[in-house]
Amino acid sequence: MPKKPADLTYKSYLGLADLLKTQHPLSEAHDEMMFIVLHQAYELWFKLILFELDRVQKVFGAKTVADADLRLVLASMSRIVNVMQLLVRQLDIMETMTPLDFLDFRGVFRSASGFQSMQFRELEVRLGLKSDERIGYDGKSFENFLPEEDRAELHRIMKKPALVDQVGAWLARTPFVEMGGFSFWKAYRKAVVDMIENDREAILKSKRMPASARETELTKLKNMQAQFDQLFLEGEGKGEALPWRFSKPALHAALFINLYRDQPALQVPFQVLNGLMDIDELFALWRYRHALMVQRMLGTKMGSGGSTGHDYLAATASKHRIFKDLFGLSTFLIPRSKLPKLPRQVEERMGFRYWDKADDAA
Amino acid sequence: MPKKPADLTYKSYLGLADLLKTQHPLSEAHDEMMFIVLHQAYELWFKLILFELDRVQKVFGAKTVADADLRLVLASMSRIVNVMQLLVRQLDIMETMTPLDFLDFRGVFRSASGFQSMQFRELEVRLGLKSDERIGYDGKSFENFLPEEDRAELHRIMKKPALVDQVGAWLARTPFVEMGGFSFWKAYRKAVVDMIENDREAILKSKRMPASARETELTKLKNMQAQFDQLFLEGEGKGEALPWRFSKPALHAALFINLYRDQPALQVPFQVLNGLMDIDELFALWRYRHALMVQRMLGTKMGSGGSTGHDYLAATASKHRIFKDLFGLSTFLIPRSKLPKLPRQVEERMGFRYWDKADDAA
Amino acid sequence: MPKKPADLTYKSYLGLADLLKTQHPLSEAHDEMMFIVLHQAYELWFKLILFELDRVQKVFGAKTVADADLRLVLASMSRIVNVMQLLVRQLDIMETMTPLDFLDFRGVFRSASGFQSMQFRELEVRLGLKSDERIGYDGKSFENFLPEEDRAELHRIMKKPALVDQVGAWLARTPFVEMGGFSFWKAYRKAVVDMIENDREAILKSKRMPASARETELTKLKNMQAQFDQLFLEGEGKGEALPWRFSKPALHAALFINLYRDQPALQVPFQVLNGLMDIDELFALWRYRHALMVQRMLGTKMGSGGSTGHDYLAATASKHRIFKDLFGLSTFLIPRSKLPKLPRQVEERMGFRYWDKADDAA
Amino acid sequence: MPKKPADLTYKSYLGLADLLKTQHPLSEAHDEMMFIVLHQAYELWFKLILFELDRVQKVFGAKTVADADLRLVLASMSRIVNVMQLLVRQLDIMETMTPLDFLDFRGVFRSASGFQSMQFRELEVRLGLKSDERIGYDGKSFENFLPEEDRAELHRIMKKPALVDQVGAWLARTPFVEMGGFSFWKAYRKAVVDMIENDREAILKSKRMPASARETELTKLKNMQAQFDQLFLEGEGKGEALPWRFSKPALHAALFINLYRDQPALQVPFQVLNGLMDIDELFALWRYRHALMVQRMLGTKMGSGGSTGHDYLAATASKHRIFKDLFGLSTFLIPRSKLPKLPRQVEERMGFRYWDKADDAA
Repeated sequence: MPKKPADLTYKSYLGLADLLKTQHPLSEAHDEMMFIVLHQAYELWFKLILFELDRVQKVFGAKTVADADLRLVLASMSRIVNVMQLLVRQLDIMETMTPLDFLDFRGVFRSASGFQSMQFRELEVRLGLKSDERIGYDGKSFENFLPEEDRAELHRIMKKPALVDQVGAWLARTPFVEMGGFSFWKAYRKAVVDMIENDREAILKSKRMPASARETELTKLKNMQAQFDQLFLEGEGKGEALPWRFSKPALHAALFINLYRDQPALQVPFQVLNGLMDIDELFALWRYRHALMVQRMLGTKMGSGGSTGHDYLAATASKHRIFKDLFGLSTFLIPRSKLPKLPRQVEERMGFRYWDKADDAA
Repeated sequence: MPKKPADLTYKSYLGLADLLKTQHPLSEAHDEMMFIVLHQAYELWFKLILFELDRVQKVFGAKTVADADLRLVLASMSRIVNVMQLLVRQLDIMETMTPLDFLDFRGVFRSASGFQSMQFRELEVRLGLKSDERIGYDGKSFENFLPEEDRAELHRIMKKPALVDQVGAWLARTPFVEMGGFSFWKAYRKAVVDMIENDREAILKSKRMPASARETELTKLKNMQAQFDQLFLEGEGKGEALPWRFSKPALHAALFINLYRDQPALQVPFQVLNGLMDIDELFALWRYRHALMVQRMLGTKMGSGGSTGHDYLAATASKHRIFKDLFGLSTFLIPRSKLPKLPRQVEERMGFRYWDKADDAA
Repeated sequence: MPKKPADLTYKSYLGLADLLKTQHPLSEAHDEMMFIVLHQAYELWFKLILFELDRVQKVFGAKTVADADLRLVLASMSRIVNVMQLLVRQLDIMETMTPLDFLDFRGVFRSASGFQSMQFRELEVRLGLKSDERIGYDGKSFENFLPEEDRAELHRIMKKPALVDQVGAWLARTPFVEMGGFSFWKAYRKAVVDMIENDREAILKSKRMPASARETELTKLKNMQAQFDQLFLEGEGKGEALPWRFSKPALHAALFINLYRDQPALQVPFQVLNGLMDIDELFALWRYRHALMVQRMLGTKMGSGGSTGHDYLAATASKHRIFKDLFGLSTFLIPRSKLPKLPRQVEERMGFRYWDKADDAA
Repeated sequence: MPKKPADLTYKSYLGLADLLKTQHPLSEAHDEMMFIVLHQAYELWFKLILFELDRVQKVFGAKTVADADLRLVLASMSRIVNVMQLLVRQLDIMETMTPLDFLDFRGVFRSASGFQSMQFRELEVRLGLKSDERIGYDGKSFENFLPEEDRAELHRIMKKPALVDQVGAWLARTPFVEMGGFSFWKAYRKAVVDMIENDREAILKSKRMPASARETELTKLKNMQAQFDQLFLEGEGKGEALPWRFSKPALHAALFINLYRDQPALQVPFQVLNGLMDIDELFALWRYRHALMVQRMLGTKMGSGGSTGHDYLAATASKHRIFKDLFGLSTFLIPRSKLPKLPRQVEERMGFRYWDKADDAA
């Protein structure tokens, strides 16, 4: 603990006496020190990410999200993004070690492994990764690799609301989507139907297009229509359930925010959605980069279940995604020119109050 | 063409009058300019990578590779690595565009697509990606997306030796691997057999290890032994063919270089092998990062064959690897402490000549 | 120019036939190709930065800045920031060339030099760098190094409003700073006076502090007070003119935005000010990184006036700053706890209109 | 300390129980956690840099540097370079904090400051920064800011050989520079004299060059000659002492290595010199980036001696350079075409021994 402020030094403030005493190589291998420091740096940054996540979740966990607090959310999210970029970059330092250097001390770990990083597991859970969506390693759940106390701790964390669900609830409360007789979903659906009809006509009428190209274009259009049909049927409770995690109102609101993001009241919410996608992408990228590094260090070395680390990690990069829904929405964007025009009273609601008496404000 | 040197200006030297006239947006969408400039920057750097590859391939294409020329190879490779890192980073700029911004001009492309980048295709082919190892898009070979003239050009390029095969041939010529009665492969095989035997004994004797852990460790050891057995049987012509691209002598030499890289004569060759892995990884990383970006822009939008861009690109990241063999070798490294000691006359051969008369040199 | 859309290919769309024909090395030196491609990439990105600057300046050049348009400003600014980060990083590629490699073709340039990049000069001028604030090279104005036609073109650009001045004018129009009887400047001044008084008392009363430390603290406080005094006296027209470029109302507004940035109406303006500082810093960083690279390539090689490239460039990094005022404001921030509380009617004005009828919106 | 290997977990191996307990914010300010974590990450990486420096200094501190050990030097240096790049990048995370956020807890530090980072001071000293070359802060030596015990420790470190001097001694022992009748320095000097003479003639004879350009070219040539004259006169003990830190034999060897780096025996030494320049540049870049960040956070806030943090730090970027000599050498490189041809027996000495009996090696 730092001394009383009056005697505070750089060293005591940062707890360096303790911090710099926590590196204990178990072998004589030169590169083990790098290995330890690098993993410790990861854990320090994970602690910060969790700390920022606390603030984000506190804001979204409130019954109503104050506009002022969205600045805090953005600040924490852009810090997380920045840290994640660093953590991806940090893997380059690991690769200043060669596979043979690694072999010099690989033996000391026995069953200890990065699988056991509780902070990383907590991060995954709190963002919203569900146990039944995880892929196993060597045919076993990741929980098998955790000490019992950590497993219990993780189960406690799982019981709290995850960020993705908190964001979903916040989205579902968005005003404007249904307001004073305006229904975004109806207007949007009509716009989609018209757009597809126009596209089909344009393809059929085009004289320059060779028959084969026309065929291709029509097939693409049909695929697109099928996707939209699913979306609308499901909205009516008739389609097969699509793999969305967000509720329907949340999805509609997210689409609405994407399409009308220029409105003053939607600019910051749009930045929030963008930031969530950044974070999701950076986790995927980190996992993939990690997989490549492991392949380089271990080749096709197998666990007792016959899995290779690379294959497992590369698979998590595509499967362990959390804000997939936000990416999936891109499928259903429609061009600005086809966007339903917002009724004037809806648009006004999304502006600032200061314009009301712009005269005396000047 | 630049003016005569006497009147040379920055503008004429760089051909800026032409260069800055090649941006022709086809829509009114603001973000199309970024889209064009970014792709042009990619193509400029691809041109440079191909140019550096020319030099690398020229050195490796020679009958014997002069030691002095390996410095040129390293210089070109480290430039390629540096450029590839930039190109991965460059995708961040693409994501300053939102999916809705992209939709504003996505319609102008019709069948034009990044698939048609001839420089990138040339790069893949010259590094060593084989047509029959490529995965198809929408059920079709990538060639289907190329204009006929480009297809013909690419076929011409395919007939020339690829870098991976040139490197394999160079490796296969490495002296030292068999020299004056010393056979690296025999010595290595013996070391492996001894190592596995010792490991097994250590596991069986260990008293502290619980039975279940012992079981796991023995299974891992068995898996490892099976991999080594395959390697050795195949070396004798008895095993199933492993999916190596390198010839056996090339593989043996690559392993030798990895294991004895401290020897003066192997230091630079070792850096070469490392650089090739860097390049391979960076291509994989670029492909994966690209896949994430496409998912963000297009969601699950499908081509006429029902493929989504993301799935296709993410699959190429793991399948379109070229120097897989070098990664695979990590499976077969053995710890320095188990390494066969090199006979003195072999070790001497790998040193510098100047030590011969170190006295008068001082 | 690209072909008609129907025949559009990747190659024609991007003008690759022309683009990839603009590289004309004048020597046989291998590294000249990298040198050309790298500079061309700079010029391509400069074109994009200028294009984004067009949009930013168009928004700020309007008589009133629509709230919706601030999203466009942020989008363009964050793209510029992203590109500038890439351009700093890009210098690493230059340093894959060694000084001796550079010497192989340095002779071909004669008087051609990076000084002559018109796009970079335009960028500096449009951001707001003034001719009389520039430092000379070899005792001469940078204009001496430009062809006559470029000089004339630059003079035309100088006559248009610079971004820094447009931003200043926008800031000066900020409502809220004086509103309905509330004067931010008066309230702020009172808060500052109180804060300094409290700090002085605290230091004098502190019993634990040794005499020498007390002396130091009091000196620091005196320095701080002197800076604030200058600021206030100048505001009354009595102080020496401080080197601010912004007008007083603009400065006050910028300070106001920094201090009350959580208010919904100030969140996006605050991001704008932050983005301008990012851009300013990245230009300084690029200049400094460039200076280091030149020192590595040329050592202390001098121009005809005896200047070395490194010294000149390093000096521009600290002198050629444009948004210095925004950095300078940090001197005058006061802790949140000392901030004057905003009157309720002012705070309300900075909120969103939709809260007015939050009930029916729900 | 980690538990006995048999019970080893990820957590015990990395000392996480302790590591993650060393963060003790002294205020309620949200951003203080980031501030602490970021500085701790710096200190962790500094520990690693010092650890790698140990290995580098051990190799160079030996009486003769074994060729095999140069690989270790390169490995450690390229790790340091990689870490330093990360540390420059890491400052971006600091700037996710705004100046007002910083003000929320700036008060807790009192006299504690980054000045007191002992690991950074040790790093500077061991690389070779001399006390009398340091610039003061607020008119005082940096030692004034250190606790007494640290000052004593630093003095102990100052008594050990610094890396720059060890490298100088190693360079001075380079064979080849004078060998069997060949004197590199004589041959080089003759080449320089001839080169300047030829250049002068070429300028005087050139008919296309306008008189003013000729004047400029001749002035540049005169400046260049003056620099070379100084170098040669000083070599003879007649010139004013130039500000070199290396001894003359070390300088000559460094120049020799730069000019003949393709020779097998010089390839790795050349990489070493390059790596040292990379490290030197990255320290300068880090200092400058740091200065920009401080300016953003504090504006022109002054210490008790009236210095601003930004000005001090920016000044250290250009003054606290250690391998300046290596940069300075670029001034004296001559084009490859003018290089004295090495006598055959010297060139042979720089090759590998294995070529001696290439036949039986095949």
